[in-house]
Amino acid sequence: MSAPVVTFLSDYGYGDEFVGVCHGVLASRCPPARVIDITHGVPRHDVRAGALLLRSALAFMPAGIHLAVVDPTVGATGEGARRAVAVQVAEQGRVLVGPDNGLLALAWESLGGPIEAVDVGRSPRRLEPLSATFHGRDIFAPVAAALAGGAFLAEVGEPMPVQELRGLELPRAQLGPDGLVVHALTLDRFGNVILDADHHQLSAADLRLGATLSVRTDGREHPARYACTFADVPAGGLLLYEDAQRMAALAVNRGSAAQTLGVARDDELLLRRR
Amino acid sequence: MSAPVVTFLSDYGYGDEFVGVCHGVLASRCPPARVIDITHGVPRHDVRAGALLLRSALAFMPAGIHLAVVDPTVGATGEGARRAVAVQVAEQGRVLVGPDNGLLALAWESLGGPIEAVDVGRSPRRLEPLSATFHGRDIFAPVAAALAGGAFLAEVGEPMPVQELRGLELPRAQLGPDGLVVHALTLDRFGNVILDADHHQLSAADLRLGATLSVRTDGREHPARYACTFADVPAGGLLLYEDAQRMAALAVNRGSAAQTLGVARDDELLLRRR
Amino acid sequence: MSAPVVTFLSDYGYGDEFVGVCHGVLASRCPPARVIDITHGVPRHDVRAGALLLRSALAFMPAGIHLAVVDPTVGATGEGARRAVAVQVAEQGRVLVGPDNGLLALAWESLGGPIEAVDVGRSPRRLEPLSATFHGRDIFAPVAAALAGGAFLAEVGEPMPVQELRGLELPRAQLGPDGLVVHALTLDRFGNVILDADHHQLSAADLRLGATLSVRTDGREHPARYACTFADVPAGGLLLYEDAQRMAALAVNRGSAAQTLGVARDDELLLRRR
Repeated sequence: MSAPVVTFLSDYGYGDEFVGVCHGVLASRCPPARVIDITHGVPRHDVRAGALLLRSALAFMPAGIHLAVVDPTVGATGEGARRAVAVQVAEQGRVLVGPDNGLLALAWESLGGPIEAVDVGRSPRRLEPLSATFHGRDIFAPVAAALAGGAFLAEVGEPMPVQELRGLELPRAQLGPDGLVVHALTLDRFGNVILDADHHQLSAADLRLGATLSVRTDGREHPARYACTFADVPAGGLLLYEDAQRMAALAVNRGSAAQTLGVARDDELLLRRR
Repeated sequence: MSAPVVTFLSDYGYGDEFVGVCHGVLASRCPPARVIDITHGVPRHDVRAGALLLRSALAFMPAGIHLAVVDPTVGATGEGARRAVAVQVAEQGRVLVGPDNGLLALAWESLGGPIEAVDVGRSPRRLEPLSATFHGRDIFAPVAAALAGGAFLAEVGEPMPVQELRGLELPRAQLGPDGLVVHALTLDRFGNVILDADHHQLSAADLRLGATLSVRTDGREHPARYACTFADVPAGGLLLYEDAQRMAALAVNRGSAAQTLGVARDDELLLRRR
Repeated sequence: MSAPVVTFLSDYGYGDEFVGVCHGVLASRCPPARVIDITHGVPRHDVRAGALLLRSALAFMPAGIHLAVVDPTVGATGEGARRAVAVQVAEQGRVLVGPDNGLLALAWESLGGPIEAVDVGRSPRRLEPLSATFHGRDIFAPVAAALAGGAFLAEVGEPMPVQELRGLELPRAQLGPDGLVVHALTLDRFGNVILDADHHQLSAADLRLGATLSVRTDGREHPARYACTFADVPAGGLLLYEDAQRMAALAVNRGSAAQTLGVARDDELLLRRR
């Protein structure tokens, strides 16, 4: 039998000991667990970027406990508070652990949906004294370790209805009379603009590989090409492509689409066949 | 029985192969060892920051060999030279390995004190030829691997009196007639100022959670609040808090306390109840 | 028997999930494999820097599958296309996996030369659908995992003559009438200039530890010293030294040799005994 797997994603970065300390807690509480770091470079407090990244990465991870921490309201009480949760999904052998602020929502949707959930904020497995700000160490890592070690959900938290789990609101591409209305879901560090359109929506708008199109934003039109790779357009050229995570995206070969187009997150763009 | 553990902290950073090469040496010399990276993001050559971080992280690490390398005088001979050491501490199953320049001193104090030490500079386990600058690869990793594999201290170096081990000088908070005199021990990358006061000293100065206080530095007074989390003060507000490592610290909500207060490492501040 | 080892080097960086996703593929396809990250901080698309670094790091890695990805022309077809390969070398138990663009060439030379090679571009083990840009995930990691799990080369790709493998062109130091003509092979992030001269060539030019020399570049002469460590010259002083990878290099104590000398990659310098 192979070792239990814990995958780990966060916005902790690499500049301090936060990630390492969580590894220490996991190794102390569940020595046989194998920990796979997805990334700790999620932009700080960017729940949506973390959620998109978690969903796409989990498709390539072995089944196991999927720990994720991007938690801008950690420690808040009252109105602003979020739950801490562990969520069993339909796909066998996978449990998500993290703050219930939308970070896990795209992942559980892609894994068949949540079938059981517990609130782990007061988990009997958490570390004491609980710090106000480092729930990765004090709650999420110990809960993930317990689950990796074979604990049942009911042993690590209080049952809660899966209907109470928080979703993540995302803009949605729509086919309109002038073309396909899309939105900038997120921008990566190279200035590529990830869109909310999928393959089927592009086809419905008559956008197929090789097609020329125009991208309208803020009243201006930019010519582009639906290409396979960056090298298919000249340097400085704008292209529509399917990225490695199979999401539609806009890029500029050797440049920044975000700058060229002047778009920010959630901005609306119109894609139209020419 | 679970695999032997080696924890690893350094200021090598992530931009080159230094950390990976040490992992290679550890895996070559002790294949079953499990290596946990605490962090390699200690500010370059900053022995004090490394020492504080090592102490706080080890509280969450399983027992094992604790390898740490922040070594600004590596390769120096004569006056400026430091020893390379392995130090058994009172807490069972833990050995510290690294340069004897103060980096390990806070850790061994927190682990019951050193009970046996060896100088590993000429260890029979070191790699030959010895480089002038990369003792992490050539001395510390091979010694850590040998110890993880079960070697006795006497097999990896020459015995030395623990009294000769070098301590780390730190400023010390003191209760004075005008309030609690504290110092900036270190500044983190968010501009938070870590202080040398502990919980008991704050209480002795009548500083309790919820209290309002003034922070005097360089002749100026800044109002602050002793709060649990950043969100307990308005944006731009100064707070005194206990950080995730249980050290007293000053922060500005959504800002930089180091900038607001104009303090640098070792600067003196006066905390006074209002 | 110890776990199979996969070492992993790339220019993917730490800001996104690329490295983590490859780890996920390796763990899914070969659960017992132990993965050692050499570094993922190779400068983006810098095949030569990656090749130099891979060669020097492998000397300290246990035998196993050595996965490396620096792949500026990934996805290109026709003229600009490169092969994807797995290469068995003479040194026992080591197979290199990566793009055949020179990245692996210095490594196989240092490991006794290639003795068997397969083209893995259409490997039966690759992931489908194949993305245009992320061959680390879709080709190289699955092939490395298969080999780590015991597959033969012939099972993961199509045999190809080792003579068709691509080498890496490097400048070469030469002893001339005026001294030793060397070149800047690469510059590290501290501004140190790595040269193409080895120990024997330095000796032949009468350059021995302790010698004073002049470094001529662009018509200007800079006095230097052949020293053991940076501290052997005053701050701001230029030194010739053998770096931790045993390559000749130029540095300025507490400064940047690249700036002081005004040299860029491939620039020629003349070293002459004074």
